[in-house]
Amino acid sequence: MPFISLTTDFGHAYTATCAGVIYTITPGATVLTLSDEVPAYGIVEGAMLLRHALPYLPEGVHVGIVDPGVGTARRPIAMVTGRGDVLVGPDNGLLVPAAEKLGGPVRAHAIENPSYRLPGVSASFHGRDVFAPAAAHIAKGSDPADLGPEITDPLPLDLPEPAIGNGELRAPILYVDRFGSLILNATTADLEAALGPTPHGTQLSVDGAPVPYAATYGMVPKNHPLVWEDSSGLLGVAVNQGSAAKRFGLGGGDVVTLRRAQ
Amino acid sequence: MPFISLTTDFGHAYTATCAGVIYTITPGATVLTLSDEVPAYGIVEGAMLLRHALPYLPEGVHVGIVDPGVGTARRPIAMVTGRGDVLVGPDNGLLVPAAEKLGGPVRAHAIENPSYRLPGVSASFHGRDVFAPAAAHIAKGSDPADLGPEITDPLPLDLPEPAIGNGELRAPILYVDRFGSLILNATTADLEAALGPTPHGTQLSVDGAPVPYAATYGMVPKNHPLVWEDSSGLLGVAVNQGSAAKRFGLGGGDVVTLRRAQ
Amino acid sequence: MPFISLTTDFGHAYTATCAGVIYTITPGATVLTLSDEVPAYGIVEGAMLLRHALPYLPEGVHVGIVDPGVGTARRPIAMVTGRGDVLVGPDNGLLVPAAEKLGGPVRAHAIENPSYRLPGVSASFHGRDVFAPAAAHIAKGSDPADLGPEITDPLPLDLPEPAIGNGELRAPILYVDRFGSLILNATTADLEAALGPTPHGTQLSVDGAPVPYAATYGMVPKNHPLVWEDSSGLLGVAVNQGSAAKRFGLGGGDVVTLRRAQ
Repeated sequence: MPFISLTTDFGHAYTATCAGVIYTITPGATVLTLSDEVPAYGIVEGAMLLRHALPYLPEGVHVGIVDPGVGTARRPIAMVTGRGDVLVGPDNGLLVPAAEKLGGPVRAHAIENPSYRLPGVSASFHGRDVFAPAAAHIAKGSDPADLGPEITDPLPLDLPEPAIGNGELRAPILYVDRFGSLILNATTADLEAALGPTPHGTQLSVDGAPVPYAATYGMVPKNHPLVWEDSSGLLGVAVNQGSAAKRFGLGGGDVVTLRRAQ
Repeated sequence: MPFISLTTDFGHAYTATCAGVIYTITPGATVLTLSDEVPAYGIVEGAMLLRHALPYLPEGVHVGIVDPGVGTARRPIAMVTGRGDVLVGPDNGLLVPAAEKLGGPVRAHAIENPSYRLPGVSASFHGRDVFAPAAAHIAKGSDPADLGPEITDPLPLDLPEPAIGNGELRAPILYVDRFGSLILNATTADLEAALGPTPHGTQLSVDGAPVPYAATYGMVPKNHPLVWEDSSGLLGVAVNQGSAAKRFGLGGGDVVTLRRAQ
Repeated sequence: MPFISLTTDFGHAYTATCAGVIYTITPGATVLTLSDEVPAYGIVEGAMLLRHALPYLPEGVHVGIVDPGVGTARRPIAMVTGRGDVLVGPDNGLLVPAAEKLGGPVRAHAIENPSYRLPGVSASFHGRDVFAPAAAHIAKGSDPADLGPEITDPLPLDLPEPAIGNGELRAPILYVDRFGSLILNATTADLEAALGPTPHGTQLSVDGAPVPYAATYGMVPKNHPLVWEDSSGLLGVAVNQGSAAKRFGLGGGDVVTLRRAQ
C-alpha cells in the first residue's frame, strides 16, 4: 500500500490535481498533502517544512515542489534516502535538508524518461505533468534509475547561518509559522555557545527587548514574548496567544540579535 | 478499516504531520482533516464545529486540538461516547458538546502511558507527540483504559447563554462562518419564547435594523440580510451572497438583540 | 474502489463534513477535495476549475457545488459523461464545461428520490444533505436513474466570449489563479486570429502596457509581466514571481485588450 506525500506552493486545487494524477496511476495509494501553502517561491520555507515533517511521515515517496525555475533548464530529480524514501522535486536544494534528516541522500536520478511523464508536458505545470507521474510510478514499484541517469551533483540549499560572538547570537529567521512565531536557524547549542548556560527562566533580550527563555508558550502570561526551542529543535521567538512577527515587525530573511538581558 | 478525524487550529502542515504520525502507526486508516483552521486558541469555535460536524462522520476516533494550555498541567484525555466514538484532545471543554451530541460521554481516561506517545515528547507539539499517537493506537484497537486512569471530572465548556425578556432575545455570537454569517447560541425555540410565534416571513429587527426571518438565503434579494436557522439548528444572521459580519460589524463574543420590527 | 472528488465554495470544515457523509455511506472510498476555496458564489471560477482539473482525476463521481440558489427551486442533478464519470451538483451551468471535456454530457437526472438523501434535509446545506449522499450512493453502485427522472434541459454556463477585430483581442478574465495570474477566456488561436502569427517572443501590449508573449514565467526577468498559454490551454497574463492581478489592478469579470506593441 504505497504512501505518497505532497508539499507545494501551488494552493489547494493545483496540488489536488497532482493527487488526482497519482490516484489515476496508483489507485488505492494513500496520498497526504503535507502542505499546499508554502509561501510562493519560498524554497527555504519549503525545505524547512520537509526537514521538520517528513521524519514523522511513513516511509514512502515524498514530492516537494517549490520551483521558481519551472520551464527553464533546472533538472527534475528523484533522490533516494538512507531511510528508504524517495524524494521527488526540482533540483534547487529544496529536498536536501529533508534527505539529510532521513538517513542522508543515497543517490539521485534525473527525471527524463518520457514514459514516466504525462503526454504533452506543459511549460508551467510540471507538478502535474512530470513530478506527480514520476512519484506515482516510483510508488508503484519503478526504480528511480528507470526514470533517468544518476546525477552526482544535486544542488545544495544555501541557508543563512547564525553568527556567534561579542556575547551575542545573531540568528537568521528562516520562516514565520502559523502562529506568527519566528523560527530561527539557530539551536540551543548556538545560544549556549554565545551566552553560556541558559536554563529555562534565563532573561534574554531580542533586538534589545527583554524576553525570557522558556520551555513553552504557557510559561509566560498571555501576550508576553518568549524564546523557546520549537518542536523541530530550532530556537524561535513567540508571543503567547499572539504573533511575534507582528510584535517585532520581522519575517523570513531578517536577523535577530539575542543577548542576556541587562 | 479505522476512521480518524482531525480538527485543530494548527494550520495545514502541522495537522498533516499529525496525520503522518497516524498513518505510520495505523497504515491503511482513513484520515480526514475536518478542519485545520479553527481560529487560533478558539475553544468555543472548535467545540461548536465538532458538535456540528461529528454526527455526520463515521463512528471512529476524532481528534480535536485547540490547546492554549499545551505544556502546562492540563490533561490530555480520551473520551468514549455513547455512539462508540473516542474523542481525543485536551481537557479544556473542547470535546464536551460533541460528546453530548454523540450519545453522551460514557467515560474518559487521561493519556499518560508513555507506550502510546512518541519518544521524546516536545513541549509545544502535543498534537504530533501525544494526541496523534494515542488516537492511532486506539483506532488500531487499544482501549482508552490502556492509556491511563479514568478521570471523572472532565472540564465542561462554558458557553455564553441567550437571554430572554422584555420582548427581546439577546443572543451571543458563537462564531462567524465561512460566508461571514453570525451563528448565535440561540434556537428557534428561544426566539419564540422571546417573541411568540415567528413563522418564516416575520419581520424582525437585529440591533434595531429590520431583518426578515426566512427559510434560506435565497428567500431574500442579493445583499439583503436575514435571520435563519442554520444547518446545525442554531439561529444565524446572514446576508444573501454577502457578509453579515461586515454588514453589522460584529463577531464571536458579541451579543445581538432580536426584536419584532416596529 | 470508488473515487469521489469534491469541489465547493464551502471552506474546509463544511466540505470535510460532506466527505464524512460519503465515508459513512461508502467506507473505503477514496475521497479527494479538489478545492474547498472556490470564491463564494463563483460559478464561472468553479466551472473553469472543474473543466481544467477533472480530466486529470480518475474516472469517478465528481461533486461540484457552487450554489447561490440553494433552498430555491433550482434542481440538483447527476450528469453522466462520455468518459464514464458522474458529475453531481446544482443545475446552474457549473458542471457543463467539465462534462464537455470528459466526453460530453450523455444524460442527466434530477436528484429527487428521498432514499438517496439524508433524513431531514436542511434548507441551506444541500452539500451535506443531498449532494454528498447522492454521490456516495452512485459511487457505491446506484445508477443516476435511481435518483430521479431524466432531465433533458440542463442549464448551460454563460461565459463571456472573446472579441476579435481592429487588430486587437478583447479577452474576458475568467478568474485569478493562486499566483495572481489573470486567466483569460481566449486561446492562442484567438490571439493569432486577431494579430496574425505570434511566436514566443512577440512583443504584445496588454491594456497599452508592453508585455512579451513567452512560453513560461522563467523566460522573463523576475517581476516582469508576460502573456502565456496556461496549463489548461487558455491565455493568461502573469508576472514572474509576482501578481498580475495587483500589477494591472484587474480581476474576474474585467476585460483586457491585447495588441501588438507599437
